Amino acid sequence: MSRRSNEAPRVRNAQRRHLLAGSAAALAAAGLGAFHKTAIAQAASAAAKPLPPYTAWKDPAAMIVHTSNTLETKRSAFGTSIITPVEQLYVRNNLPAPDAAIVADRDAWEMMIEGVKNPRKLTVRELRGMGLETVAMVLQCSGNGRGYFPSKPSGTPWQVGAAGCVMWSGVPVKAVVEALGGLADGAVFMTSTGGEKLPEGVDPKSVMVERSVPLKAMGDALLAWELNGAPIPLAHGGPLRIIVPGYSGVNNVKYIKRLAFTAQESDAAIQKTGYRLSAPGQKGDPGQPSIWEMGVKSWINSPAPEGGTVPAGMVQIKGVAFGGAHAVKAVEVSVDGGKTWKEARFVGPDLGRYAWRQFALAVQLPPGTHTIASRAIDAQGNRQPEERVENAGGYNNASWRDHALQVTVA
Amino acid sequence: MSRRSNEAPRVRNAQRRHLLAGSAAALAAAGLGAFHKTAIAQAASAAAKPLPPYTAWKDPAAMIVHTSNTLETKRSAFGTSIITPVEQLYVRNNLPAPDAAIVADRDAWEMMIEGVKNPRKLTVRELRGMGLETVAMVLQCSGNGRGYFPSKPSGTPWQVGAAGCVMWSGVPVKAVVEALGGLADGAVFMTSTGGEKLPEGVDPKSVMVERSVPLKAMGDALLAWELNGAPIPLAHGGPLRIIVPGYSGVNNVKYIKRLAFTAQESDAAIQKTGYRLSAPGQKGDPGQPSIWEMGVKSWINSPAPEGGTVPAGMVQIKGVAFGGAHAVKAVEVSVDGGKTWKEARFVGPDLGRYAWRQFALAVQLPPGTHTIASRAIDAQGNRQPEERVENAGGYNNASWRDHALQVTVA
Repeated sequence: MSRRSNEAPRVRNAQRRHLLAGSAAALAAAGLGAFHKTAIAQAASAAAKPLPPYTAWKDPAAMIVHTSNTLETKRSAFGTSIITPVEQLYVRNNLPAPDAAIVADRDAWEMMIEGVKNPRKLTVRELRGMGLETVAMVLQCSGNGRGYFPSKPSGTPWQVGAAGCVMWSGVPVKAVVEALGGLADGAVFMTSTGGEKLPEGVDPKSVMVERSVPLKAMGDALLAWELNGAPIPLAHGGPLRIIVPGYSGVNNVKYIKRLAFTAQESDAAIQKTGYRLSAPGQKGDPGQPSIWEMGVKSWINSPAPEGGTVPAGMVQIKGVAFGGAHAVKAVEVSVDGGKTWKEARFVGPDLGRYAWRQFALAVQLPPGTHTIASRAIDAQGNRQPEERVENAGGYNNASWRDHALQVTVA
Repeated sequence: MSRRSNEAPRVRNAQRRHLLAGSAAALAAAGLGAFHKTAIAQAASAAAKPLPPYTAWKDPAAMIVHTSNTLETKRSAFGTSIITPVEQLYVRNNLPAPDAAIVADRDAWEMMIEGVKNPRKLTVRELRGMGLETVAMVLQCSGNGRGYFPSKPSGTPWQVGAAGCVMWSGVPVKAVVEALGGLADGAVFMTSTGGEKLPEGVDPKSVMVERSVPLKAMGDALLAWELNGAPIPLAHGGPLRIIVPGYSGVNNVKYIKRLAFTAQESDAAIQKTGYRLSAPGQKGDPGQPSIWEMGVKSWINSPAPEGGTVPAGMVQIKGVAFGGAHAVKAVEVSVDGGKTWKEARFVGPDLGRYAWRQFALAVQLPPGTHTIASRAIDAQGNRQPEERVENAGGYNNASWRDHALQVTVA
């Protein structure tokens, strides 16, 4: 049951009402493509799927349930407090979550550390004694924005809601490595293996969740047991998850049971051929770039995040902006489809280079329809791109044009 | 239902087990007074009270229910992610919360602004268009720490858990005042009135929640509609609450229905005679200081926050420190009851001057019993005091000695 049990039915109905009221014809005329019309048709025809049991504690009014492994945050649910509460945070599992028994005695969870001078098993209880760090970080699925590809690549058609900004707390990986005598020779990658139970009768390499990232990622990585001030829920990788700030979601391996410093990338399919940047029509290949560091991106969450009408007068255009691997430096907003831009201000505290910033710009919008967009620039001068980079997997879509909103002022 | 529905029974049992295992004799020998022995006796004899319905969404394992108006966070529940999640946040109401109908249509909530050149009513919908700011803030009840007064002043015997650090988002009060033509002449105080339904047959002044703070408090004050990224729950003052950063909890009036800039303090009892710093045995009087700005304070949350035993070896001593009205500058930890001190490090991002900082110090504790304590200093050089300041209401207890913990290392 969500916390707003006496509010949830009303909010859910309001959401459905807003979606139905969006003008499909207007959106089509604006060239926003097939996806939006499909979304509206779906909302009109089918009841929303219920939350899967292991996520029953989330706010149903805030979530779009694609499947039991893929839940998306509604664009209209994002607040302005920078940190995304866990009841709204997206879920993307590559395998079904393990049994809840693994969070019954969190301190007893054990993992193996290899590729160090003194390899050994460590429990969460032992890890807690070895250090502490807390980091605010954008967690984003590499497929966030895939829904805007007209080519409709296979995979969940996320729009903006496979992302959140959350606080992780745990022990720095480098503290653990130091305590175990330092790295063994030949370490080039940091390789993490998830503790999911694998389906029977299938080649383990084809399904296991094992990801490798460059060794430099160890610098800010954590073995985390806490998310937003409470033990990590099973749905988000509890009792232990490796957190690799600035790196795309899949690299933050859930229920980590093995951390190894390796000479090669993992040969698990999810690393070898999965999550690769391939040209359209190509298959994934170890020679292609792996989905690692995230890039600069922003989008607007208010007003009218599902399209629609706002009253005339002063409007606060609000959204989020981040740099991925680098701090975000600035963000601009356009209310005329990208012809002119104005710098928005950041709102609230700076939670560090891996977090997103909340931005706002007050505008007076005259009656009519406006295409509003945001584009960010990071501290290294990298600019959020106008167009998406076409790729077979529909990954890494940061296109400001794709993320623009149509707003009608009455 | 809390989010950890399959974990909650086990955690609740563990908590009760820990409390029963605390050695009452050891605590008495350490001179920690009557309160702890009472708490242990209560835990042993009575079942924990259930969460009142308007807080049913909170984590029962994290809360101590004193009454339906007073819920405290367990010391052991505080995480290290700086921001306190709402499922753990304390509740202290002076009157029963209004009917949940007021959060059914949040944007329609209306309040009156007076003491400005153009006084008028404003709805939450209108306020949203007028500006945006987000602030991280320590919310603390003035009675936090009252449980350590041996004199047992009347009022809830909070220990540390009538406090949290949370993100509020809303419109700056000064933006609203400016939009309404600026202050009228003669404004000396900012006075806020809560929208609770008052009990019949009682003088309204004797029960209404109306608080006045100095005008300077307007500078960083917000009319907030959002808490930690979601609409403020009814239990925490939704749909609208005035947030006065750095000021004690009672001044952050819930369900605010009137904001006035006044020449005098309110003559409601809660302002006139309530929440005053009175000498022991004295009644509250308008001539005494009102409970306004909070002062520098810190406490340790781990290890062994309910007393108890920890294994020998490296221990991370973890806690929170804040300056109240000013930023906290540093915090020290002692493991020998205050004879010697070592500076702890701050962990995680700095959320601004009104937030608390997470701190940690790694120590090797030899076998035996140790009194561990923390003491903070703020940016203006104000030091957390060793002793409490005796007062009739048991307010403002920041004594580092009172907040010390007994830890036994096996």
